[in-house]
Amino acid sequence: MTVAHTVELEGHIIDSGTMGTCFGIVMDMGGEFEVEEFEVGRHKHDESYCRMRVLAESEADLKAILHELNQNGATVADPRDATLEPAPADGVVPPGFYSTTNHPTHVRIEGEWVEVEDPEMDCALVVDRNLPDDPRVRTVVLNAVEEGDLVVTGDTGIRVEPPERPRESGGSFGFMQGGISSERPSESLIGEIADEMRSVREADGTVLAVCGPAIVHSGGRDALADLVRAGYVDAISAGNGFAVHDLERDLYGTSLGVDTESLEHPREGHKHHIYTISEIVRAGGIEEAVDDGIVDEGVMYECVVNDVPYVLAGSIRDDGPLPDTITDAIEAQDAIREQAHEADLVLMLSTLLHSVAVGNCLPSTTKTVCVDINPATVTQLIDRGSAQAIGMVTDIGAFVPMLRDELLESADAA
Amino acid sequence: MTVAHTVELEGHIIDSGTMGTCFGIVMDMGGEFEVEEFEVGRHKHDESYCRMRVLAESEADLKAILHELNQNGATVADPRDATLEPAPADGVVPPGFYSTTNHPTHVRIEGEWVEVEDPEMDCALVVDRNLPDDPRVRTVVLNAVEEGDLVVTGDTGIRVEPPERPRESGGSFGFMQGGISSERPSESLIGEIADEMRSVREADGTVLAVCGPAIVHSGGRDALADLVRAGYVDAISAGNGFAVHDLERDLYGTSLGVDTESLEHPREGHKHHIYTISEIVRAGGIEEAVDDGIVDEGVMYECVVNDVPYVLAGSIRDDGPLPDTITDAIEAQDAIREQAHEADLVLMLSTLLHSVAVGNCLPSTTKTVCVDINPATVTQLIDRGSAQAIGMVTDIGAFVPMLRDELLESADAA
Amino acid sequence: MTVAHTVELEGHIIDSGTMGTCFGIVMDMGGEFEVEEFEVGRHKHDESYCRMRVLAESEADLKAILHELNQNGATVADPRDATLEPAPADGVVPPGFYSTTNHPTHVRIEGEWVEVEDPEMDCALVVDRNLPDDPRVRTVVLNAVEEGDLVVTGDTGIRVEPPERPRESGGSFGFMQGGISSERPSESLIGEIADEMRSVREADGTVLAVCGPAIVHSGGRDALADLVRAGYVDAISAGNGFAVHDLERDLYGTSLGVDTESLEHPREGHKHHIYTISEIVRAGGIEEAVDDGIVDEGVMYECVVNDVPYVLAGSIRDDGPLPDTITDAIEAQDAIREQAHEADLVLMLSTLLHSVAVGNCLPSTTKTVCVDINPATVTQLIDRGSAQAIGMVTDIGAFVPMLRDELLESADAA
Amino acid sequence: MTVAHTVELEGHIIDSGTMGTCFGIVMDMGGEFEVEEFEVGRHKHDESYCRMRVLAESEADLKAILHELNQNGATVADPRDATLEPAPADGVVPPGFYSTTNHPTHVRIEGEWVEVEDPEMDCALVVDRNLPDDPRVRTVVLNAVEEGDLVVTGDTGIRVEPPERPRESGGSFGFMQGGISSERPSESLIGEIADEMRSVREADGTVLAVCGPAIVHSGGRDALADLVRAGYVDAISAGNGFAVHDLERDLYGTSLGVDTESLEHPREGHKHHIYTISEIVRAGGIEEAVDDGIVDEGVMYECVVNDVPYVLAGSIRDDGPLPDTITDAIEAQDAIREQAHEADLVLMLSTLLHSVAVGNCLPSTTKTVCVDINPATVTQLIDRGSAQAIGMVTDIGAFVPMLRDELLESADAA
Repeated sequence: MTVAHTVELEGHIIDSGTMGTCFGIVMDMGGEFEVEEFEVGRHKHDESYCRMRVLAESEADLKAILHELNQNGATVADPRDATLEPAPADGVVPPGFYSTTNHPTHVRIEGEWVEVEDPEMDCALVVDRNLPDDPRVRTVVLNAVEEGDLVVTGDTGIRVEPPERPRESGGSFGFMQGGISSERPSESLIGEIADEMRSVREADGTVLAVCGPAIVHSGGRDALADLVRAGYVDAISAGNGFAVHDLERDLYGTSLGVDTESLEHPREGHKHHIYTISEIVRAGGIEEAVDDGIVDEGVMYECVVNDVPYVLAGSIRDDGPLPDTITDAIEAQDAIREQAHEADLVLMLSTLLHSVAVGNCLPSTTKTVCVDINPATVTQLIDRGSAQAIGMVTDIGAFVPMLRDELLESADAA
Repeated sequence: MTVAHTVELEGHIIDSGTMGTCFGIVMDMGGEFEVEEFEVGRHKHDESYCRMRVLAESEADLKAILHELNQNGATVADPRDATLEPAPADGVVPPGFYSTTNHPTHVRIEGEWVEVEDPEMDCALVVDRNLPDDPRVRTVVLNAVEEGDLVVTGDTGIRVEPPERPRESGGSFGFMQGGISSERPSESLIGEIADEMRSVREADGTVLAVCGPAIVHSGGRDALADLVRAGYVDAISAGNGFAVHDLERDLYGTSLGVDTESLEHPREGHKHHIYTISEIVRAGGIEEAVDDGIVDEGVMYECVVNDVPYVLAGSIRDDGPLPDTITDAIEAQDAIREQAHEADLVLMLSTLLHSVAVGNCLPSTTKTVCVDINPATVTQLIDRGSAQAIGMVTDIGAFVPMLRDELLESADAA
Repeated sequence: MTVAHTVELEGHIIDSGTMGTCFGIVMDMGGEFEVEEFEVGRHKHDESYCRMRVLAESEADLKAILHELNQNGATVADPRDATLEPAPADGVVPPGFYSTTNHPTHVRIEGEWVEVEDPEMDCALVVDRNLPDDPRVRTVVLNAVEEGDLVVTGDTGIRVEPPERPRESGGSFGFMQGGISSERPSESLIGEIADEMRSVREADGTVLAVCGPAIVHSGGRDALADLVRAGYVDAISAGNGFAVHDLERDLYGTSLGVDTESLEHPREGHKHHIYTISEIVRAGGIEEAVDDGIVDEGVMYECVVNDVPYVLAGSIRDDGPLPDTITDAIEAQDAIREQAHEADLVLMLSTLLHSVAVGNCLPSTTKTVCVDINPATVTQLIDRGSAQAIGMVTDIGAFVPMLRDELLESADAA
Repeated sequence: MTVAHTVELEGHIIDSGTMGTCFGIVMDMGGEFEVEEFEVGRHKHDESYCRMRVLAESEADLKAILHELNQNGATVADPRDATLEPAPADGVVPPGFYSTTNHPTHVRIEGEWVEVEDPEMDCALVVDRNLPDDPRVRTVVLNAVEEGDLVVTGDTGIRVEPPERPRESGGSFGFMQGGISSERPSESLIGEIADEMRSVREADGTVLAVCGPAIVHSGGRDALADLVRAGYVDAISAGNGFAVHDLERDLYGTSLGVDTESLEHPREGHKHHIYTISEIVRAGGIEEAVDDGIVDEGVMYECVVNDVPYVLAGSIRDDGPLPDTITDAIEAQDAIREQAHEADLVLMLSTLLHSVAVGNCLPSTTKTVCVDINPATVTQLIDRGSAQAIGMVTDIGAFVPMLRDELLESADAA
């Protein structure tokens, strides 16, 4: 038995790789294709169009192929409305629920294509129909689904738009996984990142910095504090450890026990982070410690003083933790999700755990910069299909000061 | 002004490095020393003894030096009782509290040296004096200190015993940070680890396996399930991801979407982990899913069927999570702490986050084996001062099956 | 001023990415394109055809774009003969010489398309016209060009054929840079590699093993010797260090001083490699040492006894070296080149330096397997555009024995 | 049967670890020890003294233990002259030859302790007795031994002096393998390295920079050229690749095809290095290319213009090579050896191969700085027992400019 269905592709589908990918999907999954119509974009700005019939040996195979084509941007030729089913209980999705990609997505409801709010991968799609206005579709993480929520199931009536290759060279913000390399010229790349930060600032956008403790250990803390104070960083996402070491640096002049000025290693320094935690606990929290004058410089200090919001997410390797740290993972993810949805540019600075957590919540359209000394970390973070991402394998203790100099010294000069 | 204090060192202090370390501490911290008495152990099994006067230029310097010497095994020459102060509030330690090492420790209370229960680093020491029996001293993590707890402060009356170099060669369980290398002969090393596991089993001890998802992705899952079923693994510590991928393998035959038998990459497979989570949620949890017959093989299955306890600790990068996952970091740490204190041998298998969490709770006397393909991870985990540790840079997907063959095939042959 | 030229593309140019790449080249390099004709392959096995006009703002820009299109498989619409110029001196190419890719290539000479012998990248193309038979075109490395050699210059009359995506799934030998991951199921992947080795053997082909010293240090030496003896490895390419440690293992039972059986570390063992070298030097070479009975097992021994040819290439970090080691880099490259051109399957086993040297000489059509514990090494080696390559991040000390068991035990069973 | 011998240890043997190491050697190798006399250094600057009898079960065991103790600084109690034997042929050492460590060493000849010239590991010791003056002892690499050379055999009459822990803190130049970490404060550490370079310069010493191509790719080339011009780098040791990419940068404005200013990736750029080689070959060499005005900036240019000597050592992965490259490994090692023996400070900059080659020739007393983005490389290079070494895991493209600014901008200010 052979079954078939017709799908369509539209846009810059040749150089964005969409069409090649779709051909490959069909072949990899054991199907066949017949191209029924093909209009190539004859010039750079023209879009292409392809309509093809996909054949498979069983309904199950066909469904699997169509699902995969759909996730990569193909749409079925004669669209119908999406199928909706109520969630049977809190936190429980109906069987066959549609699990999202991180690409812009539309859902067809009563003949209309409704854009999904806050695209994010691995979520359910919940439709709110009984609103005074038009129906709304939002991404809802599995544990937040509520009994009775109308959840989209199957692939019918869903249109996914993977990012397209920009028509002009996008500079170093490469299309899909561009060049990640430790051998790229560092100074020039930092200049491009600074330009992007200036643009976001001018447009009143939001730069979210995801910060690992290596920033403090390797001497990048003061530069980051400068950037917060100067208004180039609008939100901080980090863990308990980053905050503790930033505060330790203020209270004891050390980071993990090493004096970052004299480089002397006060033998007793390895206890400073525990003492730091106990002092902040005694004060009642970071803001209280700033108010009491216990803390008077550093990244957390600048956040408090300049009203830059921060999320400290807890983990099982934390000491303490600080009173500000959100110890429940779900609660912390909710806080991170909110940060991620608001961000226009995300700087992932030397932390795999927190960067993955933020990255999980980002749509593929948000620009990201990922800096880490470990090439495997950079590859893993860039490889989530962001349309525009810069990966940089470098020392964060050199990167942040160079970025600061680029942004603040040129500003002084101007 | 010069101030001075006399300290003593005793044991195999030369080849264990204790004496060299203590000399180094004094010099690094700007002090001087005068050796007043020195008895060298003249034969291999004889202990050495050293009494020396430590001089410094201020009381503060002296105190810092003595603190550091104390943490490395030196004791003050004329001991007094430890100082105790009540905790001012829940979760708040008194200023100057003594923060523990992970070495065996004694505290002097009313002239008696009381051994600290469950040595663990970065904790406070709480003394229970109003007991019918002798006073007890236990390690308490900062957030679990309760108002009124008697907490040890300062360094007085505390004796730390760093591990000593074994008198006979300890095989591959190296003294302190031994040889970690990707260039060590893998087969022979696995034989030694198997021997140790057999010894623990014969002594009715506890082998704790700390498991990362790479075990499943790289094809080591069936071998680990075999080891659980055969009783060589007595407890599992892992994250939500490990359990999800182990269950996905059962439900869909894939791990992160790759069919581990045929190696074919079902294009739609990357959604399997989300579907797996939704099915287990629907069943109510892992045990329920086993009871319902939804899950019928794998590591989690063997744990349920063989009553092998497991802790699944949540993190902010989790999808789901599963109903079994402990999402609160402090609660999860408490569960991990209990596992760690009971373990006689800890296998850290391809997970940095969970291994650090377990390692934080271990005394320096627990034997550990750490296997990871990333040399930096192995170094970081071994470097916490365990007296006997094996670090192995290898592929977990090859290691676990080889360990299984070594343990189960030789058992069959016997 | 706008200049233009017409180029053609033919084959499975959509799913192989050729057409998308060519569109991207034109846009990245500031040009424009007009698609004049486009025939899509309507079914899986149909080829596609595209003729497009490329426009640029200057002759220089156009030339650069055409050069790049040419290297990626596009041909100019109305072909002319290639331009030939004599080399002015030994080792000196004429200005504007054509530097090769590693793809199959044809050169147009007197109206005929002549296939280039031994495709290899970064070479000159030398045409031998005064032969009794048809003209021949061969790749010649720069230092081997002789005065008067007719060298191809410019891009005219050259047709490059980048690898095409296979029409059926090629198993784990991925098209272009497939999946390299430490998280792939090891046992199954080894089965596929063993299958390929059996096929090569049945077809009387040549398996070339490129060997690093880690094979010996990590305990894979005996398994590799077994494979040589059983005829699964037809040639060895290695360095002085690999041979020294293989021989040391025979002479002293150690590898870099570690006893690979007992794992004891004979303290004096770190001198064994120097003693080994001095003994082989005294015997006159490896073959002489085998003949004298000094060496009676191991990889080098099996090579000598089974007439498996080996090349030992010297480097500046060598001790000794052995009399068999080729110390001159150019002479060594020539020997490696010969090995590479004869190989049907290349196993790159834990050595970056020697694998790069071999890889530099390989056409893109040779199947390669690259095994290393360092993911960056695997990425770098796989990333040279081989049409079919498997990258595996694993422990070579586990990999080689598993491969041996797969090949030899199943053979025994049969 | 028990055999015994008495050895002595002298110096700061406790905190330098020598004594603990020697106790450990005896125990690891199955021997026993009896301490006959022990004088502890009672104050920081006092030396200690230990005389102990070492017992073993056979002459062979005893010999092995004594050999190992000797290599770690112990001397036999009643010294005799070293044993000398003539080399039987060119490149052939007598059996039982003494293979050197890289520590300062003395050899007893006719009752006198003669200091070994140019200590270097894995060499033979050749004694020149028929000189007008005192006898001389020099290290000779195995392949350079000449027939009839008097070579030291056995361990008799040899005194090795491993480095001692400095009495005062040595700053970041750690004693033996100090702290290597990516988490050390970068800016401060660079300040210390700059201080050391200034000291060497003031003392008319020699700073040898060992350079990898990553310096050029990551944008550190101009800064290094500045340091050569300013006289802070007195010699360069590199490979063909470093020189090619430095010259490519000058000729084409790219490094491996990437424009390091605009970051644009001229598609055709990947051929620039081959064109560069062909142009330098055509000119006849680097110096000729500078004279002809073909090359007018960069590291190689500054070397030529400022008479800074360089060694370019060839390898089997080279393209070309350049006429200046020494393609024979033994010849290249000889040139590197000469550089290494003259160096007072060695900067190992992002190259494993060349750094190992230089490191092999260095005595343990030469200060070294090793910078690489790969922590495994830094560990491997630092781990050769240098008395004073700084290991830094950072981006070379950030490191060199920061070092330049530290040295040249502060100089300008002064």
